[in-house]
Amino acid sequence: MTGPTGRSERQKMAAGEWYRCIDDELDALRWQARRAVHSHNSLPPDQRGSMAPELHALFAGIGVGAFLEAPFHCTYGFNISLGDAVYLNAGATLLDCAPIRIGSRTMLGPNVQIYCAEHHKDRALRSQGLEIALPVLIGEDVWIGGGAVILGGVTIGDGAIIGAGSVVTRDVAAGAMVAGNPARLMGRAAADGQA
Amino acid sequence: MTGPTGRSERQKMAAGEWYRCIDDELDALRWQARRAVHSHNSLPPDQRGSMAPELHALFAGIGVGAFLEAPFHCTYGFNISLGDAVYLNAGATLLDCAPIRIGSRTMLGPNVQIYCAEHHKDRALRSQGLEIALPVLIGEDVWIGGGAVILGGVTIGDGAIIGAGSVVTRDVAAGAMVAGNPARLMGRAAADGQA
Amino acid sequence: MTGPTGRSERQKMAAGEWYRCIDDELDALRWQARRAVHSHNSLPPDQRGSMAPELHALFAGIGVGAFLEAPFHCTYGFNISLGDAVYLNAGATLLDCAPIRIGSRTMLGPNVQIYCAEHHKDRALRSQGLEIALPVLIGEDVWIGGGAVILGGVTIGDGAIIGAGSVVTRDVAAGAMVAGNPARLMGRAAADGQA
Repeated sequence: MTGPTGRSERQKMAAGEWYRCIDDELDALRWQARRAVHSHNSLPPDQRGSMAPELHALFAGIGVGAFLEAPFHCTYGFNISLGDAVYLNAGATLLDCAPIRIGSRTMLGPNVQIYCAEHHKDRALRSQGLEIALPVLIGEDVWIGGGAVILGGVTIGDGAIIGAGSVVTRDVAAGAMVAGNPARLMGRAAADGQA
Repeated sequence: MTGPTGRSERQKMAAGEWYRCIDDELDALRWQARRAVHSHNSLPPDQRGSMAPELHALFAGIGVGAFLEAPFHCTYGFNISLGDAVYLNAGATLLDCAPIRIGSRTMLGPNVQIYCAEHHKDRALRSQGLEIALPVLIGEDVWIGGGAVILGGVTIGDGAIIGAGSVVTRDVAAGAMVAGNPARLMGRAAADGQA
Repeated sequence: MTGPTGRSERQKMAAGEWYRCIDDELDALRWQARRAVHSHNSLPPDQRGSMAPELHALFAGIGVGAFLEAPFHCTYGFNISLGDAVYLNAGATLLDCAPIRIGSRTMLGPNVQIYCAEHHKDRALRSQGLEIALPVLIGEDVWIGGGAVILGGVTIGDGAIIGAGSVVTRDVAAGAMVAGNPARLMGRAAADGQA
């Protein structure tokens, strides 16, 4: 729906500006994603394969050998890009109100949660549905431990390791290891073949 | 089932006293909730709508425009009251052994967990099924970030903001922002329209 | 599949050595578990009972009166042993690449996550599927709070209490209470019948 500015809420969302999530166009897109998510989560595993066809059709990009366990949850789907051999274990939750790009061979443990959107901190504006969404960019060969939460705007560099149960509120450098709530630097991922 | 005191375990649970969860009456009520939860989580989205009818029938109160994504989980259902336009994102887990009241326009991110009940800390009594349950009261226009855990007995004031992944063990004042494990005060929610 | 050493990846996994998870034999075992997990999670509650028959057939051991809510998730199933009257609330996630033994009358809150396996910390070896798995041994009469994460190699003693939302990275002594991320000692579980 276009407002006085002539721009739709979807366009404002895509531009990284404040937008109203209470909107007919966005609502229709969310129902489309609910149907695809339901298909993925209810199909018998041998029919689901690496990903339900309805989800495959929604995503912005899917590399060779990418695999999604069930259950899986996303808000829109069309903002999600997966590289080659990306693996999402069971219970991944991707609120993809902005682009979520996951690099090749990156592995997400179970119940990893990526939250691009945030509501407005002002109570009155929040109650009108004001949200803003920032991308989450995850490099190649990253390992994200189970139950980790990644907030909008975060970039995670190639080869980084995120400890299980971490809450990642800031960027993580390539090759870094972080853990905790909020996540803090714990060291470097091994580069010499030692664990 | 009534004990020597003539009061049932359900009555003791409702009174906020120690009760045995191993009990035929409570067990039957839990099976009733399992059926309603299963219906909500397995119905195609267009049939589920804002909430499966079986869950709607169980809840203590449901305001206009309240919406539950799937999956959803609760223990009994009859202790849950939702205000107008309350929104629970996917994966909400409400152990409603005591009342859980969520005020109008309050939004729960994905995987928010509300745990009213606790087992006994004494090993022998715990093994007999001794539990106690305390209410969780959440005000209006509250925003609870994804993955947050709220313990029994906690009251959250109007307009408060709970950070993603927080573990909330104490009351949160109206308009406060808390985050962390355990959750600590981080500031005030903006009151002037600034994010 | 046997490698140059004549030992299969499954044998290396069972021996607690580094193994490649990208392997036909392990893949077939994971598909078997996906089918059993799907059955447990999609059956109506009255048909599922305490545990779907396919899961029951997979587990290494199941005591009298053990009960699994839905949804439930595991990687293989054959490494899981449950004592008598063990209770796993909804959303339990057990990555059982090594043995997970849970003692009698132990109770897991919702969304408890047990992660036996870890990927290699070296990026190049991780990208080849190198993993190692360590057992998780949980005693009798333990109470694990909802949302807790338990890492591979951890032993939890009889009667211990793990706070909701904890990330347990080290052993927990019998009768100890721990909480936080990472979990730290908070005291002793009451031994005198006082909460």
